[in-house]
Order: sequence, then C-alpha cells, then structure tokens
Amino acid sequence: MYSFRNDYSEGAHPRILEMLMKTNLEQSDGYGLDKHSRNAANYIKKRLKREDVDIHFIPGGTQTNLLTISSFLRPFECVISADTGHVNVHETGAIEATGHKVVTVPHQDGKLTKEGILQAFGAHETEHMVKPAMVYISNTTELGTVYSKAELSEISRTCKRLGLLLFLDGARIASALTSTVNDLELSDYAQFTDIFYIGGTKNGALFGEALVICNDSLKKDFRFMIKNRGAMLAKGFVTGIQFEALFEDDLYYELGRDANELARLIEKALKEKGYEFYATPCSNQLFPIVSKAYIDKTQNDFAYNIEKILPDGRVAIRFVTSWATTKNSVDALIATF
Amino acid sequence: MYSFRNDYSEGAHPRILEMLMKTNLEQSDGYGLDKHSRNAANYIKKRLKREDVDIHFIPGGTQTNLLTISSFLRPFECVISADTGHVNVHETGAIEATGHKVVTVPHQDGKLTKEGILQAFGAHETEHMVKPAMVYISNTTELGTVYSKAELSEISRTCKRLGLLLFLDGARIASALTSTVNDLELSDYAQFTDIFYIGGTKNGALFGEALVICNDSLKKDFRFMIKNRGAMLAKGFVTGIQFEALFEDDLYYELGRDANELARLIEKALKEKGYEFYATPCSNQLFPIVSKAYIDKTQNDFAYNIEKILPDGRVAIRFVTSWATTKNSVDALIATF
Amino acid sequence: MYSFRNDYSEGAHPRILEMLMKTNLEQSDGYGLDKHSRNAANYIKKRLKREDVDIHFIPGGTQTNLLTISSFLRPFECVISADTGHVNVHETGAIEATGHKVVTVPHQDGKLTKEGILQAFGAHETEHMVKPAMVYISNTTELGTVYSKAELSEISRTCKRLGLLLFLDGARIASALTSTVNDLELSDYAQFTDIFYIGGTKNGALFGEALVICNDSLKKDFRFMIKNRGAMLAKGFVTGIQFEALFEDDLYYELGRDANELARLIEKALKEKGYEFYATPCSNQLFPIVSKAYIDKTQNDFAYNIEKILPDGRVAIRFVTSWATTKNSVDALIATF
Amino acid sequence: MYSFRNDYSEGAHPRILEMLMKTNLEQSDGYGLDKHSRNAANYIKKRLKREDVDIHFIPGGTQTNLLTISSFLRPFECVISADTGHVNVHETGAIEATGHKVVTVPHQDGKLTKEGILQAFGAHETEHMVKPAMVYISNTTELGTVYSKAELSEISRTCKRLGLLLFLDGARIASALTSTVNDLELSDYAQFTDIFYIGGTKNGALFGEALVICNDSLKKDFRFMIKNRGAMLAKGFVTGIQFEALFEDDLYYELGRDANELARLIEKALKEKGYEFYATPCSNQLFPIVSKAYIDKTQNDFAYNIEKILPDGRVAIRFVTSWATTKNSVDALIATF
Repeated sequence: MYSFRNDYSEGAHPRILEMLMKTNLEQSDGYGLDKHSRNAANYIKKRLKREDVDIHFIPGGTQTNLLTISSFLRPFECVISADTGHVNVHETGAIEATGHKVVTVPHQDGKLTKEGILQAFGAHETEHMVKPAMVYISNTTELGTVYSKAELSEISRTCKRLGLLLFLDGARIASALTSTVNDLELSDYAQFTDIFYIGGTKNGALFGEALVICNDSLKKDFRFMIKNRGAMLAKGFVTGIQFEALFEDDLYYELGRDANELARLIEKALKEKGYEFYATPCSNQLFPIVSKAYIDKTQNDFAYNIEKILPDGRVAIRFVTSWATTKNSVDALIATF
Repeated sequence: MYSFRNDYSEGAHPRILEMLMKTNLEQSDGYGLDKHSRNAANYIKKRLKREDVDIHFIPGGTQTNLLTISSFLRPFECVISADTGHVNVHETGAIEATGHKVVTVPHQDGKLTKEGILQAFGAHETEHMVKPAMVYISNTTELGTVYSKAELSEISRTCKRLGLLLFLDGARIASALTSTVNDLELSDYAQFTDIFYIGGTKNGALFGEALVICNDSLKKDFRFMIKNRGAMLAKGFVTGIQFEALFEDDLYYELGRDANELARLIEKALKEKGYEFYATPCSNQLFPIVSKAYIDKTQNDFAYNIEKILPDGRVAIRFVTSWATTKNSVDALIATF
Repeated sequence: MYSFRNDYSEGAHPRILEMLMKTNLEQSDGYGLDKHSRNAANYIKKRLKREDVDIHFIPGGTQTNLLTISSFLRPFECVISADTGHVNVHETGAIEATGHKVVTVPHQDGKLTKEGILQAFGAHETEHMVKPAMVYISNTTELGTVYSKAELSEISRTCKRLGLLLFLDGARIASALTSTVNDLELSDYAQFTDIFYIGGTKNGALFGEALVICNDSLKKDFRFMIKNRGAMLAKGFVTGIQFEALFEDDLYYELGRDANELARLIEKALKEKGYEFYATPCSNQLFPIVSKAYIDKTQNDFAYNIEKILPDGRVAIRFVTSWATTKNSVDALIATF
Repeated sequence: MYSFRNDYSEGAHPRILEMLMKTNLEQSDGYGLDKHSRNAANYIKKRLKREDVDIHFIPGGTQTNLLTISSFLRPFECVISADTGHVNVHETGAIEATGHKVVTVPHQDGKLTKEGILQAFGAHETEHMVKPAMVYISNTTELGTVYSKAELSEISRTCKRLGLLLFLDGARIASALTSTVNDLELSDYAQFTDIFYIGGTKNGALFGEALVICNDSLKKDFRFMIKNRGAMLAKGFVTGIQFEALFEDDLYYELGRDANELARLIEKALKEKGYEFYATPCSNQLFPIVSKAYIDKTQNDFAYNIEKILPDGRVAIRFVTSWATTKNSVDALIATF
C-alpha cells in the first residue's frame, strides 16, 4: 500500500533533520525569540525583498488561520471565503469558535473571484448582518488550482477598495510558487496581501508555518495573540531552525518543484488515457474523475481521498505528491490508469 | 553565559532525535491516527496500569490547558486554581479567551489545598456568580513544590464530593515523579484525577504533551475539540514518535531524575551557604532568595529569572535544571554562592 | 405614511399596559423569581398540557436564540438552519460570536425539510468538520409560511433519530397558531421540540419571549446561562406580568388572529388583482411580487421592506400586519393594488 | 414584610408609565432609530453640555457591561477592576464569556484607586500575561460609596497616561449625583471617562441603561456590536420613551434625591444608636453592621441582603432605598434599631 493521500505522511526533509541535530544542544531563548528564528525570518525577508514585515512561526495551519482571523476582526465582523475554503469546511468550526462567521460564495475552479467578493460584500449591507472585514484565499487552492498574478492583483485591489483585509493561506504556497502556470513571486504576496503564510508542514518540515504580516497596522501586540491562542511553543527555535534550513538556500523551492514534477507525470498519464479532472491540474494536488471500478481495482494498493461522488456515479478522487513521494510509486500508480 | 532560565532551552534528547531519524521516511496516517502514537499510548497505559484511558498528544502546554478547560465547562462555569497557577498568570488570558473565569485562592507553598478549594467553592453559591466546575493543579507546582499522595488524594476526594472535575497539569510531572520527596506513581494520577497530562516539552521532547483522559464521561468527541482549537498537527506522528522514545523504556524517568539530581547539588550548596528559599526546594526548579549584590555579580555569566522582589529588598530568583544541563555549568553556578 | 414594515412598530396591547399599571407599586422579587412570572408560566403550562417544562422569560429574540444555542452545544458543534433562518442572516453574527457555526441548506418555501437536515448532516461526517448537534427552525418562518403537523413531526423524528436537538423559534408563533392553514396546537410544540419559544415582542408585548424547555436534560443550571449572557433583567417581573396578561385568557390568540385576518384581506385583494407571491401567504407576513412602478407609486404613503429584487426586475416586498394595524390603513393599502 | 433588598422591586415611576401610555399607539421605527430615543439622547446631551457623544439605550446592566468590554478589547486584553466590582463578582462570568480576564485589586472603601490601577498594571508587564487595556469603576460603588471629583480626575489621568480606557458603570449614578458628598456633575463624567452609562433600571425605569460613548475612537460600528450581543430590542423606542420621561425635566435627579433622603434618615438613626458601617454611608445603599440577634428579630418583617459575616460574628447587611420606598416603611425600619 502506498499513500497518495496527502503531503504530510512522512517526517522532515533530511537537511532539516540534519540542522536540528547540529543545533540540538545549543542553548536558545524560548518562545521564538532565538537566533535561528531571526535567521529564518531574515532569509524569508530577503526573498520578499522587504525588511518591513513581521514574521512569526506558528506550529500548525488551522491554528494559523484561527489566530490570524481572530486577531484582526471585531466580534461582529466576518471573513469572506470560497465555499471550498479550508476555514469553511475542514477546521471543525475553529474560526467560529473564536467568534466569527465565515461567509461563503461558490468557488470558481477552487478560487474566489472579484465577483464573488462583491457578491458577498453586497449581500451584507445592514447592521443586522455581519460586517465583512477580511477575505480569505488559499494558494494553491483546496482544489490544487493556482491564482495568477492578474487574479491576485484584482482581488487585492477589490479588497483595498472595499476596506477588506486580504489574508492568504499558503499552506501549499511552495507548490504554487513552482507550478508551471505560476507567474507570482514570493515578493508579490507581500505586496498584494495584508497577511499571508508560507507553509512548512506540507513542504518538508516536521511542522510549522511562517506567518508574514505585511500591513503595518496589524503588527502591534501580535505575540500576545500567539500566546493567547496557545500557539507559542516553548521551544520556538525548533520551528525557526526548520525554516532556516528551508530558506537559507533554495531548499523550499526545490521541494515544491519535486512534488510538482511527479504530479505532472501523473497528470500527463491521466490525460493520455482520457481522464477528466474535477479541477484544473497544475500543482501537487490532482483531482481526476474515475469510475467506481477504478477505485475497486486500486484501493488495496494505493491510498487516496475521495473528494466527491458526481451525479453520474463517477468519482472525483485526490492524488497528492510531495518531496517524499518516490518515483517508483508514481510509476506504479500510472500503471493503474 | 549559561542559562538556568528554564528546562526548554535545548532541543530533544538524542534518543528522541534518533527515533525521529529512523522513522523519518515511513508513511504514517495523519492527525495522530498512526502506529507510533498508538505505541506511545500503549506504553503509557502500561505505566498507568490501566487500559481504559484515552491518550491524546497535544503540541504545547498552554494549548493543552485551554483545550481541556474549554472542553468540559459550560459557559457559566469556572475553574479553581491557586493564584500562582499557570492558567491564571502566565497564559495571556488564554483560558478566559475560551470563555471561562479562573477563580483563585492564595497558594500554600505553591499548592492548592482542600481548604482553598472549599473557600473558593463556598464563595460562589448563587446563580449570579460563576459556578465552580473544575479544579486545576500542577505537579510539580509553579514554585517547584511536589504534592504528596495524601495531599493529592485529599484534593481528589474533595473534588468528587463537590462535583468538581480535577485536572492536573503535568508539564513538569517528570520532575515530580522522580523527586526525593515523591510518593506518587504515575498510576496514582489516573486514579486521583479526571484528566491530567504528562509533559514532554520540559523533559526531553522537541515539543508535546500527552493528555490522559481518565474519566469516561470526558472521552466522547475529544478529537473534535482538538481540531477545533487548532491543536491537531497534520504530522501527529511526530509527537507520537517522541513519546514512544520516552516511554518504551525508562527514558522519561531518567531524564527527570537527571534534572533533579543536578538541582539537588545546587540546593545542597545553597543550604550550606545559608540561603533561604522562597518555596520548598524538591524538584528541578529552585527559588533561592539572594541579595541584589548576588544578581549584579552573576548576571553576566548566568541567566535565570527573577520571581519576586521581597519587601526587604532581597530577591527570589529561579534556577531550573534539565536533562540537558551540564555538570560543569552546575559546578560553575555553585562557585558563585 | 403608514407602516406595514413590521409587527413591532407600536407599544403594548392596552390590556398589557393596564396590568403593568395595576401591579406597578407591588414589591416583587428580582430576576424573574416573582409571583407574576410564576403565574405566567403556569398559564402557559396549562396551554401546553404539561407541568414538566421549565419556562424562562427573556427580553429579546436574538438574545433568546444565542442563549439557547450556546447553552447546549459544545465548541465544535453546529446548528443546522435553512439559509433564510434568522440566526443565519439577521443577527449580525450573534450565534458565531458565541462560538458556533450555523450550517445552512436552501429553504423550501421558507422551511427546512427532512431532506435538508439529512443533507447537512450527511455532509458533516468527519472530525475535521463541525458536528451537527441542533436543528433550528422558525414558525411562522422568516417568509411567513407555516409548518404543518406532519412536517414538524417528521422533522422531530428525524432529529431524534440523528441525535440532534430541535429548537423552534416562535417569535411569530401567535400568527402560526392562528393561521387558517395551521393544524398545530401549542401543546404539540412541547411534544415535538426540545426547546422552543413563544414570542411576545411581535404579538402585543413591549418586549419579551417565553422560552420553554421541554427536554429534561436541558433544564439544569439554565438560569446561570441567562445571567451569563446578560439576559436576566433585574425587574424580571415586568416580562412576567406581560405574559400573565397574554395568557391568563385568550389574549395571545386573539392578537395573532387579528393580525392574520387583516393579512387575509390584503392577500385576497392581491390575488384578485393577479399578484404572485414570493412565498405562500398564510400568516401576518405577505411577500407579494410587485413592479418597480408600484414601489414608486406607493413609497411615500406606505412603509414596507424590500425582500428581494428578482431576475426579471420585479420586486418581492413584505407587508406585515399586527394586533395594532388599523382597518383603515389596510383599506388604504388595498386601494393601491 | 417590606423589602429593603434592592432598588428594583417595583415597576416604573408613574410619569414614565404615563408617557408609555400616551405614546403607545404611535408607529415608531424599530431598533432604537426612533424619535423618542433621539429626544432622550438630546436631553441627556444637554445635561452633558456636549453634542459630540454617542448615546445608545441598552436593556440591562450586565448586558451593558459585557457589551462595552467586549467591544473595545482585543482577545489578549483585560479590564482592571476593584475586587468588589460588579463585573468581577456578580455577573456569572459574563465578561469572561466574551473572552476577557478581569484583573482585580483590593478595593478601598468600595473604590478603585490610582495605586490599585498602578499595581495591577505593573503586575502585567510581559507578553505571557494579559495586557491591561481598560479600567472599570462604578459610581456609586457596589458598597454605596461615591467617588469625589478629585478621585475620578486622578483615575482618569492615570488611565490616559497608561493608555487605558476608562469605563464607568453608572447603574446607580442617580444616587451618586444627588448624594450629599457629591461634587461631580453629569458633564464631568463625559470629560473624565471614555464611556459610561446612566442607569435607568435602579432609578425609576422598567428597565434600560443609557450608554454614553465620549471617546470618538470607540463610536464606529457600535450598533453592530449591540445587535451582535443580542442587546438591540425590536421596540427600542420603549427604552427611549422611558429616558425621555426621566430627562425631559429633573425627574431623574428627583428620584435619586428621594432615595438618598430616605437613606439619610436610616443612616442618622443607625448612627444615633451607635451602629458601625461596613462602608461609608452616603448614597441609597447602606451597609450597617448588626448582631445576629438583630437579624433574628427583624427577618420576618423586613427583607434585606447579608453582605458579609465578619470575623467577630457580627454581620454587615445591606439596606437599599429607592424612589418607590415609602416613608412609613422607613419609619418602621428605624423603629427596629
């Protein structure tokens, strides 16, 4: 049995483990106030081509989402998301548990659009309704699609015009940055969003997300919020060290590229066999539409998620590749098409 | 500069790192539903001499506290704590942020007593006040003291009689279990408390706490709560592996014992020099009372926390030892007394 | 200008004011523990043909909704509602502010159906999603439609089977109980729901809703919750007295009937003129579909809400009648059709 | 049996009932956007000698407190209060239920002092603790004492210097304004505080508090918050009408003065008999210290609260007078001393 279920089935990339080993007995300050966290932040700032951002390392993705949203919204304010948004569907009410409604509009190929934002905004115009205050998007999206620079720029302008903060969930930003359809650099994210994060968990780290606060007005007292939500690890340097390894050179990009390249092999094979896709394939998540028979045939050899059973009985499934995915397993998977 | 500031200045015990290395490329199920987490839970159950407990691995201590308290209290219910309790002082309002008041009574040598519980309970008798529903204690306490079996048993009986849940924060339970004054086994905790946790962060892990639910009525749907609070790591197996290493043999106890033994050396030296203590020294946290001059003399060579400035101008400081503390540094510290 | 905007434009029915005057200088116990509140509860229990319910008087409707939902759900649990549900749309995020997601399905003529509940329930099957724990419905609905006994009974059975609590918002239950299409008695509500309320604000009171807890397991400590949410008035007897006046004889029903009868006159006139309706007209809320020209013609003489602009440019508007609506104004309104 | 238990045992002052009767069948806009609420706000602004404040009418006191505190604090911020503060003791955790810690210091004759604020502020200096952001005081205090202009001014300056908002609970401000020891005008409150409220419930209204926002930065979107907390009554005009009656002339002051004068009679009689007081008597709440025998003798004829049992066995009790208290009952009470 080989798992294409997700990109967090294995531990850390060996170079991260090495750096953890090498620094293991150093004494570091606690709570993320250590040298390694500073180094990691500086490496990331260099990529962002900006010094004037605040970077915080947070253990997990749901935690980063709930922390970010609850930090900047007043109790009556809501966040707008595509209906497929991770914060809407897959966080067991974590956002609402901090007191905020997630207002949704139907996704377009996994994406939120300017039109969707305008629709959600326009539908909340009185004091008897929640007040939109933030937009949440993910890149890559929950359906593995990738925003173009034009799309992200348009969303950004729309948010600014409407007075909405733009928060981008980059749990899989590595795959976005290295997608063949991508035209966004990391520095673009710092320009277009108010706050976004660079995911470690799904791209080679044991855990950890690097949250980048670009908007000055959001920076104050953010460490209080981290502690308040239980997101401040005593050994914060463990997260810092991992991002130091990922960003001191090109490792973060290499791992994203490796995952994407294996996905492209699978995509190519699927297309050659005439398979359709539930969403445009362009990153390390693929959503081919298969028959029930295919599932019966393969389910003892390969693990993958079922995304949706379609009206015609066919099934959209999900294959995910990662830095740790082996070429052999990809070949074996391709042989099943 | 050597730091006696805390027991989380270094990485993980080498045997934990080895196990992480050895298992690194295995494919595991996500979210803590993996083999290693099961193994770790089973090792712990053996120590507890009970099969009928639920064990969950949570990344951090504040997170475990807020998760536990918010899982079992209704909105109008409160938790009773000593005024020194971590949940009262040092969590940036994390408990209140989940909606619950922490009602405090003055500590006795760092401990909560039966009398303290009765006092807090008796002071909240009407529906115009919060209703006590849980008692929170730590072992070792925030002042490094250790509950005896008689004390814990009495607190447990008091809670049962009053209908209060008993939650024990074991962030430093390793030091308690291996203290020379200790007469409690790990299995006693499962008998006396409704829920408690076994701290990893402060005893050799990179991070992680093992939460043990002993009371059947608290078990249902707890994993929903973990996710809801952002405390469910995608690579939950990383925590599981660490506790596997700590509990597959005596490592957890050895590390606690090592920390305590170094603390005893420091304690002995301090006592020989006639120093007084702010709280009874018996674990890996020591609170000697020193002069301002001592601080001036040592502050460039040793890092430690200031606990309290006393009315007479003397200062209670805190030295903390851990599995990673070196004998050399202890000797150097002793030479300053 | 005469307003058909809502059923809370005027003060209280004169018989309520009289009772407030008559009892004004009596000394009563505070916080709803007074004789009048007990009397009112007893009158209602007689109507319910049950003694074993708890009745609490709450100042407002949104407050009753947030209080009820937050009292019985754990942090990861959600409430299922029609997308038109008041708790979803018109409460400025009040439910989410207490920590709970409102999961919605499309309404059917303003109603939630068994199929809708099954759909929402079936879409939330893993611990990575909120867990459905309660169903929220309103009668009359937000579109003025009325549940039949068969419909309410089927919803009730579905909830029981799925382990969901059923909460019915009866802000306009007076209009439902006296609708010509109604086949439900007040006592049926106590049988079919776990908790429901009898609205005073929209049927003759200055303010106030009578919350009826039918399910034994929900009764404990509810007064703590009322206080915790700021919903316990010091002079609780003021609410008790109003419900005493409404239920000591048939006043509550008479007022609902009066409102409905005036609405029937409007409905009849509209139908004769060939107007269509956005939802089935059967209570004191009517949603005729009118032209833009009609609005231009009438907007200086009559106040009413715009519910929705339809794709074809026509507009669904809302007329609401109440016990205080005058026959003259109804005649004048009819003359505009 | 006559009750001196509180100042909310009777209904409304007859002139308030008259105004409710007189306006009863007028059609008013909902949710506090009506003419009467505007009139009432204007009358109050005249008393405040300021136009640039926002005034909102809220049904109850606990609700006003939780609404105000939760509107302006971020999740990690706390409010400082005397330990006797209503928000600390008598609101069933309502403040914490909105996510905020109440940090307390010991009261001085029922009051919070500059020193108390400095102590609480100084004890919360790191990001591992809640951050003080607001100070809560009541006038009259929970022990019936009255702040002088010098005291309030000093607290105000201290708050400004420390960057803390000052919120004053004026549930019993009528008694403070008309106390013989008072030197504060209503306009002073608008100068010294950021936000305060003028209590109706305890001074002649059926219910209702007038919240005055003085600090410009707190005004935005406050009506969203009112709705979000369930504090926006549909018939908001009912509260507006009551405050119109209280403030169109001197009624509000007359009622406070009447209550105080009766309290002075009781105070004088107690002092002549040599009774001591638990807190300085100067408003409509008196806390004489009596013997157990006194309680045995009087408890069948008079209702009053027990505040505290003193170490020597004597008991501090509370007598409260109001506009509705009769001279006969005061004479009868005096005869028991």
